[in-house]
Amino acid sequence: MPTPAYAELTTRLRHLHLLDTLGHLLGWDEQVNLPPDSADLRAAQQSALAQTSHEAGTHPRLGELLTTLEAAAGLEADQITVVKQSRRDYDRATRLPEAFVKEKAVQASRGYHAWAKARAENDFAAFAPVLEKNLGLAKREAGYLGWAGREYDCMIDLHDPGMTAAAITALFDELKAGLVPLVRAITASPVRPRADLLRGFPVEAQRTFLREVTERLGFDYRRGRIDVSLHPFCSGCGSDIRMTTRFNPDEPLDSLFSSIHETGHGLYEQGLPAAHHGTALGMNAGMGVHESQSRLWENQVGRSRGFWRFFEPRFRELFPAQTAGVSADELYLAINAVAPTLIRVDADEVTYNLHIILRFEIEQQLFAGTLAVRDLPAAWNAAARDLLGLVPDSDRTGVLQDVHWSGGAFGYFPSYCLGNMMAAQLWYRALALRPELEADFARGDFSWLLGWLRREVHAAGRRYAMPELVRRVTGEPLSPQPLLRYLRERYGALYLQ
Amino acid sequence: MPTPAYAELTTRLRHLHLLDTLGHLLGWDEQVNLPPDSADLRAAQQSALAQTSHEAGTHPRLGELLTTLEAAAGLEADQITVVKQSRRDYDRATRLPEAFVKEKAVQASRGYHAWAKARAENDFAAFAPVLEKNLGLAKREAGYLGWAGREYDCMIDLHDPGMTAAAITALFDELKAGLVPLVRAITASPVRPRADLLRGFPVEAQRTFLREVTERLGFDYRRGRIDVSLHPFCSGCGSDIRMTTRFNPDEPLDSLFSSIHETGHGLYEQGLPAAHHGTALGMNAGMGVHESQSRLWENQVGRSRGFWRFFEPRFRELFPAQTAGVSADELYLAINAVAPTLIRVDADEVTYNLHIILRFEIEQQLFAGTLAVRDLPAAWNAAARDLLGLVPDSDRTGVLQDVHWSGGAFGYFPSYCLGNMMAAQLWYRALALRPELEADFARGDFSWLLGWLRREVHAAGRRYAMPELVRRVTGEPLSPQPLLRYLRERYGALYLQ
Repeated sequence: MPTPAYAELTTRLRHLHLLDTLGHLLGWDEQVNLPPDSADLRAAQQSALAQTSHEAGTHPRLGELLTTLEAAAGLEADQITVVKQSRRDYDRATRLPEAFVKEKAVQASRGYHAWAKARAENDFAAFAPVLEKNLGLAKREAGYLGWAGREYDCMIDLHDPGMTAAAITALFDELKAGLVPLVRAITASPVRPRADLLRGFPVEAQRTFLREVTERLGFDYRRGRIDVSLHPFCSGCGSDIRMTTRFNPDEPLDSLFSSIHETGHGLYEQGLPAAHHGTALGMNAGMGVHESQSRLWENQVGRSRGFWRFFEPRFRELFPAQTAGVSADELYLAINAVAPTLIRVDADEVTYNLHIILRFEIEQQLFAGTLAVRDLPAAWNAAARDLLGLVPDSDRTGVLQDVHWSGGAFGYFPSYCLGNMMAAQLWYRALALRPELEADFARGDFSWLLGWLRREVHAAGRRYAMPELVRRVTGEPLSPQPLLRYLRERYGALYLQ
Repeated sequence: MPTPAYAELTTRLRHLHLLDTLGHLLGWDEQVNLPPDSADLRAAQQSALAQTSHEAGTHPRLGELLTTLEAAAGLEADQITVVKQSRRDYDRATRLPEAFVKEKAVQASRGYHAWAKARAENDFAAFAPVLEKNLGLAKREAGYLGWAGREYDCMIDLHDPGMTAAAITALFDELKAGLVPLVRAITASPVRPRADLLRGFPVEAQRTFLREVTERLGFDYRRGRIDVSLHPFCSGCGSDIRMTTRFNPDEPLDSLFSSIHETGHGLYEQGLPAAHHGTALGMNAGMGVHESQSRLWENQVGRSRGFWRFFEPRFRELFPAQTAGVSADELYLAINAVAPTLIRVDADEVTYNLHIILRFEIEQQLFAGTLAVRDLPAAWNAAARDLLGLVPDSDRTGVLQDVHWSGGAFGYFPSYCLGNMMAAQLWYRALALRPELEADFARGDFSWLLGWLRREVHAAGRRYAMPELVRRVTGEPLSPQPLLRYLRERYGALYLQ
C-alpha cells in the first residue's frame, strides 16, 4: 500500500509529466506543422509552459514529500527508486538559480545562431567566445548541482545516469584499439559498394515501404504516427509517439534507415510501463540505453541478411524499374556500405564510433583545461587524421560541423557510442537465447526480439543505470567486445574475404 | 503610461492567454493528428492544462489587481475595457465552485456519449434525463454567476456579451415574418437546381482550388494552415490559425464553402491586434460577430456572381471533364441551391435561419419552464412543420440531431443567426461605401472588403458588444432587414422571376 505521502508524490509527478508531454508536442508541432511566421508565438508558448512547469517542479510541497519519504521506513524497492529519481529532478530544478537558467537559455539561442553563422562562414574564431562561455556555464551548472571538481562527469551523468568519464575512457580505449585496424582493413579492401546505385525512388512508394517495414517491426500506429521534418526525430510518450523522417528520391536508404532508427526509439517509448509514466518506473533509462534500442533495430536487425531476405521482394515489387539492374549482393552491399567521411551524421556504423571517440577525448580535455578553445581546430584535425585517416579541409567539415556545443550540450556525444556497444551486447545475448533469430526475420517475424526487449529492457524503466541494466540483461559488464565482434563478423564477411 | 498594476495585469493575462492557446492546439491536434488509441492521454493532458490555467486565472493577485484598477482614477478608455473583460473572466473563474466545474465536465462527457447512443437508437427517452440534468446545471451556473431569474440571458451572454433573449426575440420575430413567406415562394418555384450535377472531383485538384481561393480572399498561409478533419473548424490565434476541411469527390462545393466559411473565421483572428492578444483589445467580440465574418465571406462574397466570374474559369480548368456538361447558370444555381431539409447542418443559407429560430424558441421555453423535457419531441415536430413545412420522421432527424445540448451548450444557437444578420448588414454598408465591390471580385480583388473589415471590425477587438459594434460600423441598429433584403435579392433573382 502506498503511503499518503507517496501517493501525493506520484500524483504531482504525473501532473509534471503531463506538462512535459505538452512541451514535447509543441516541439514536434514546430518541426512538422508550424506556419513560417509563427516562430515568436511558439517561443512564447514554450516559455509560458516552461514557467508553469518550473513552478510545479520546484513546489515546496514536493520537497517536503521527498524529505518525508526519504526518512520513512518500509518503502518498497520500486518506491525508493521513484523517490531517488524525483530527488534528482527536484534538486536540479531547485538548485539552479533562476537567473542562471535564463542566462543559459538566452545563451543557447544566441549560441545556435552564432554557430550557424560561423559554420556558414567557416569562421571558428567567431564561434570560439561562444564555446568559452558555454564551457563556463557548464562548469557553473555542475557547481550548483554539487559536482565541483567533476564537471565533465556531471555532464555525462545528465545524459546517462551512473556513467563516468573514467568508465567511458576505459571502454572507448578498448574499442579504439580494435576498431582502428578494422577500419584500415576495410578501407584497403578492393570491395566497393557501387555509388549511385539507387536513384529515382518515388516518395509515395518509399512511404508505403517504410510504413510496412516499421509496422512489421512492431511499431504500433494506433499509438503513434510518422510525419516529415527537416531532420528525423522521435518524441512523445506512451500512447502518442511521434516519429519523423524525410524523403529524397535519390536516397531511399537514408529515409528507410533513419525511420527504422526512430522506430527503435519509438518501440522503447511504447514499451515503457504506461501505469508508471512520470515516475522512474515508467521512464527511459537514459540516452545511451535509448540509443541502444534505436541502433539495434537500425543496424543489427535492419542491415541483417534475414531482414532483407524478407523485405527485398517487396522492395523490388514497389520499385521495379529502380531495382531492375541491381543484384541482391549489390543491394546488400549498398545497405552495408563503409566509407570514412569527415562528417559524423553521414558516417556508416563502423566508422561512426571513431567520430564519437574523437569528440569525447576533446570534451575531456576541454573540461580538464588541458586543451584551450583556441587550439581546438588543430587538435580536432590531428585527431581526425589519426582516427579516420582524413583531414578536414576546413573547420566547416571539422570542429564546426555539429550543433551540440553551440547549445552547451556537453557529455552528450558519448551516449551514441555507448548505445552502439549495448546494442551489440544485447544482440549476442538475444542470439544466444534464440539462435534462429535471423531465420525468424527471414519469415518477417520480429516478435521474439521485441518481446524480449519489452521484458528485459523496456519494462525496467529507469530502475537500473546503464551499466547495471546491461549486466542484468546480458550477464556481462558493458563491453566494447560484442560491438567489435559484430562489426568484424558482418563487415568482415562483406569486405575482408 | 500604464500604471504598474495595469502592466502586471496585462502580463498575467498574456500568460493566461498563452496557456489557452496550448489548449486550442491540443484540441486541433486531437482532431487532425491524434493516434486512435491516445484519447485517454489527450484527455489527461487537457485536464492538467485546465488545472494549470485555472490556477493562473483564479490567482488572488489577479483579484487584487482588478480591485486596485477598478478604484483607480485616470485609466484610459481602452484600459477600462481591458479591466472590465478581465473582471468578467475572473469572476466566472472564481465564482464557480471547483466541485461544480468537475461535475459539469464529467456530465458533458457522459452527456455526449448518451446523446450519440440515443441518436443512433432514435431513443429520446434515454436522452431526456441528460437534458434535464444539463438544464439544472445551467441554471445553477447562472445562479453562481449572479444571473438568478435570468438564466437563459446568462447563457446567451456567455456567447454574445451584451445580447439578451428579449432583444433576440424581437429580431427573430421580425426575421421570421419575412422569411417564412420567402421560403414558401422559393419552395413553390419551378426553378430547381440539378441534383447530382457535380460528381467525381479529384481531391488533389479540390485542394489546389481551395488553396487558391482562400489565399486570394486574403488568408495568410505564412500565419496559418489548413488540414483535414471529420468536421471543419478553425482554431488558433494570430500568427498560427489552423483551419480544417474535409473532401468528398462528389461534394466539391461542401469542401469549398466550408473552407471559405472557416477562412472568414481565420481572417478575423488574423486581423485581431496581435499586440493585444490576451486582453479584450485583441480578443474577438463574441460568437455572433465571429459568425458574421465567416458567413459574410462564405455567402455574400463566395456565392456572388462577381466571385464566380473570377473563379469559374479556373474551376473549369482544374475540373475539365467534371464541368464539361455544366452551364454557367447551372453551376451558379447549384452554388445557390435552396431546398428545405430537416437537418440544420445540411441547410442552405435561406432556410438555415428557420432552424435557429426553432431552437431559440424551444430553449426559451425550456428555461422558462413552459415546456417540459418530455414534451420536447412533440414541440420540436410541430415547430418544424410550422417553420420548415417538414415533419421529422424520427427524433433522429428532429430533436436529437444536434450535439450542442448534450454538453450543456445552451444559448449558443442564436449566434449563428445573429451572425447572418450582421453579415448582411455589413455587406450593404460595404456596398454603400464601395458600389463597385462585385466588380472588384470579378477581377479577383477582395482587398477593399478585407481592409475595411480589418479597420472597422477586426481592429476593434472586444471593445464593443455586438449591438454597439453594428451601430458604429453601419450607422444603424442591428436588424434582420438587411438579411431579408439580401436573401430576396439574391434568391429572388434565381427562383422568383
